[in-house]
Amino acid sequence: MKSSENLDFLFHPQTIAIAGVSENVNKFNFGLKFLEGLTQFGFKGKIYPVNPTGGKIGDKIIYSSLRDIPDRVDYIISAIPAPYTPQLVDDAAAIGVKAIHFFTSGFGEIENEEGKHLQQEVIARAQRGGIRVIGPNCLGLYCPRGGLTFNYDYAKTPGSVSMISQSGGNAAHCIQEGTSRGVYFSKVISMGNGADLNESDFLEYLAKDDETKIITAYIEGVRQGPRFFKALQAAAKAKPTVVLKVGTSESGAEAAVSHTTALAGSDQVWEGVLRQTGAIRAGSIEEMMDVAVAFDHIAAPNGDRTAIVGIGGGASVILADEFSSAGLSLPKLSDDTRQKLIGVFPSEAGRIFKNPVDLNHFESPEKFFAALKILDQNVETDLLAIHVAFDHFGLISKAEKEFWVTAFVQLIAQISKEMTKPLSVILHSYSSPDMKILAQKAAVELASQGIAAFPSIRRAALALSRFVGYHMRRAASPGSKRH
Amino acid sequence: MKSSENLDFLFHPQTIAIAGVSENVNKFNFGLKFLEGLTQFGFKGKIYPVNPTGGKIGDKIIYSSLRDIPDRVDYIISAIPAPYTPQLVDDAAAIGVKAIHFFTSGFGEIENEEGKHLQQEVIARAQRGGIRVIGPNCLGLYCPRGGLTFNYDYAKTPGSVSMISQSGGNAAHCIQEGTSRGVYFSKVISMGNGADLNESDFLEYLAKDDETKIITAYIEGVRQGPRFFKALQAAAKAKPTVVLKVGTSESGAEAAVSHTTALAGSDQVWEGVLRQTGAIRAGSIEEMMDVAVAFDHIAAPNGDRTAIVGIGGGASVILADEFSSAGLSLPKLSDDTRQKLIGVFPSEAGRIFKNPVDLNHFESPEKFFAALKILDQNVETDLLAIHVAFDHFGLISKAEKEFWVTAFVQLIAQISKEMTKPLSVILHSYSSPDMKILAQKAAVELASQGIAAFPSIRRAALALSRFVGYHMRRAASPGSKRH
Repeated sequence: MKSSENLDFLFHPQTIAIAGVSENVNKFNFGLKFLEGLTQFGFKGKIYPVNPTGGKIGDKIIYSSLRDIPDRVDYIISAIPAPYTPQLVDDAAAIGVKAIHFFTSGFGEIENEEGKHLQQEVIARAQRGGIRVIGPNCLGLYCPRGGLTFNYDYAKTPGSVSMISQSGGNAAHCIQEGTSRGVYFSKVISMGNGADLNESDFLEYLAKDDETKIITAYIEGVRQGPRFFKALQAAAKAKPTVVLKVGTSESGAEAAVSHTTALAGSDQVWEGVLRQTGAIRAGSIEEMMDVAVAFDHIAAPNGDRTAIVGIGGGASVILADEFSSAGLSLPKLSDDTRQKLIGVFPSEAGRIFKNPVDLNHFESPEKFFAALKILDQNVETDLLAIHVAFDHFGLISKAEKEFWVTAFVQLIAQISKEMTKPLSVILHSYSSPDMKILAQKAAVELASQGIAAFPSIRRAALALSRFVGYHMRRAASPGSKRH
Repeated sequence: MKSSENLDFLFHPQTIAIAGVSENVNKFNFGLKFLEGLTQFGFKGKIYPVNPTGGKIGDKIIYSSLRDIPDRVDYIISAIPAPYTPQLVDDAAAIGVKAIHFFTSGFGEIENEEGKHLQQEVIARAQRGGIRVIGPNCLGLYCPRGGLTFNYDYAKTPGSVSMISQSGGNAAHCIQEGTSRGVYFSKVISMGNGADLNESDFLEYLAKDDETKIITAYIEGVRQGPRFFKALQAAAKAKPTVVLKVGTSESGAEAAVSHTTALAGSDQVWEGVLRQTGAIRAGSIEEMMDVAVAFDHIAAPNGDRTAIVGIGGGASVILADEFSSAGLSLPKLSDDTRQKLIGVFPSEAGRIFKNPVDLNHFESPEKFFAALKILDQNVETDLLAIHVAFDHFGLISKAEKEFWVTAFVQLIAQISKEMTKPLSVILHSYSSPDMKILAQKAAVELASQGIAAFPSIRRAALALSRFVGYHMRRAASPGSKRH
């Protein structure tokens, strides 16, 4: 078992060789796709395509072998067929490469013994050559600061969330989900079979990485249980660490073995591990990013007492249920607060000055703002949540709906600047095609202003309860520093 | 306690008077909004605006009183202030009106005794006059066959799903959610305080209504417990009956009282009621519509053994977990099925011929179709689910993604025509703004072809488990007819 290593070198190569780039432009030329992806993403170093056939791609020479490259090579992306990988590793060792990412699959994850033996052979050769391996069977690294990506269109903006993923598809999903919510990434690691560098290596590294403020992880199973437990404990002590553990069902565990060789372990054991280490459990990629949104965008609250405000009686009932069921506290508003609210709004049928506060309809931005200020200044609540129910805007035309949504977003942006309590926004009930587009625009606009916006009541309740719970546990434990 | 009544007359008025239409065009002129909504929706009968001020709106005379209308009036929509409603009821009784919908709020739901007394008074006068009341404090009726609506832009297509809702906003949300998924409605009833006609009346009616094949209900609480229990039992025996029961938390229950006077009751009691009556419980509006999508679009399966097929190893693990956790069975594929699948695809690394079947990447429509045919014809599964993971399409350009999504939708439409087993489609992992638009187009296209499409893995698993569970219970109980 190795001690924690500084893996910074993986994320900042100056030169990359891509093995398996052919001259043919077709959908199975994955080497070319990596080449194009890195180029379009703006990787600042040099890229050297490699293929035994030689040739040219654009104005780049395709080198027949790694050994022909007239430069130092820091990092290799391999998209060649599995049987040729042992030779690739030997060549890499010969020219002093320190890291290889194997996009190549056909190793430990397939159903015959051949793949497993090949994987052992490749890893043994890499270790002899002093090379660290990412994968095999994975998409590799996304790191905006290092210019690394595995897709064309990921955000170039670096952020403070990192992710370890045993699935390339779910890493991709996570990046898109996060980015669309205003969460940007420091390092995303699609690690596949984890035959050399595994989930524990990356977790130990991210726990100490100053650029990473929040760790997220999609885990199918782990290879070194006790080491992973310690790594998770250290990570969760250092920063919010959110884990999506899958493969919890029999069918899921079997799919995990076929997918990335991971042994899933029992769900009960995992529940215990996550609780004991202080990690935060997420139930889906979306939930994991919801929690990241909260930690990334919202300041630490002083407690869990939440005031909810918005328009809609039915929505208020559902909000109350979901927030309570997630374990958040919705205190009754004090007489003082209620009197102040009644002072702002002429007493009117249908308005409910309880918590959730149902303003019934949107009378004026000034009054909405005034209500928020009252809730911000009262002593009985710690957090504020504004909800906007799109489909509930009955009796108005499409143009009016557009007007309202735009007005709401502007208003919330203004409000968020003046509130002293942590604020989040819940966008919900946008079912019609028109409203979906409006809601998406609103979400992107709020995200671009660094406001935490959640796309459903339940997801908001779950994410906020985990976020608040983390801060309350930290506050209760005097040894821990406040995030 | 009244016996079940035929309420058809509510949904097919020939003439409607709208009380509270003023000449002023502003956002609080709700009477005008109802008038415009019905007109644009294409209500075929006559509409008479009423307001003591008189005047004209467009080319329509505003009558000073109901008594001045030179025609029989079948139905009244009241948008006048609460204090004037007793007089309105007396006038209505005098001209022989049979039904009034009170959009008007300010009755039993507000915090003072005045509102409660006013509500009692209005209902007493209505009963003396032989008038049935919808509401007060609600949006009323949406019934495409009758030309009734409470919004401009609802679908004019009639369908076979009906809904009872104690929240106008949630009724609106439900209509939009359903319509966007290809579910059309027979009758949606926003019933507010239910001071005269209540949830039991409407449930008894819908249970016997031939136009209603599936009943859905948003319930905050009930007024006549034993009657509701019987009504629910009868409804659930006659047709799939899906209930979203809210107000299950203390805060939620309090919000429900303020919202529509409903007494929520304990969650445990409700869990028992729903189980004993054979109703299907939903956890949100979206879940309720997911279940409606299943019953509306998918034929009854012979069992719960599901075969899942699509692209993505990580997605396969999550699918297996979520389907298992929802109680669906994912049987191992037989050697015969596996051999047939291997026959279609050249043996290749990364492909997993287990269940879920992970095809790794999209090689050709013909091979995908062939795989589905093999799964359709095997003896070890009863249902088919195809999943499409949008964000998992790594390494390809936006144009390629668009091409793939379009190709997939066309392929699924073709496949759905040839499958003998019930088929559903799971669209998931569409997080980027581009992909959200693509996914929405795909969903609308699939919905328009009557294909059951679900927008997330979890929602698909929950809806299908409820759908399949219903049919398995029916199959096990010889007295029940098959839906």
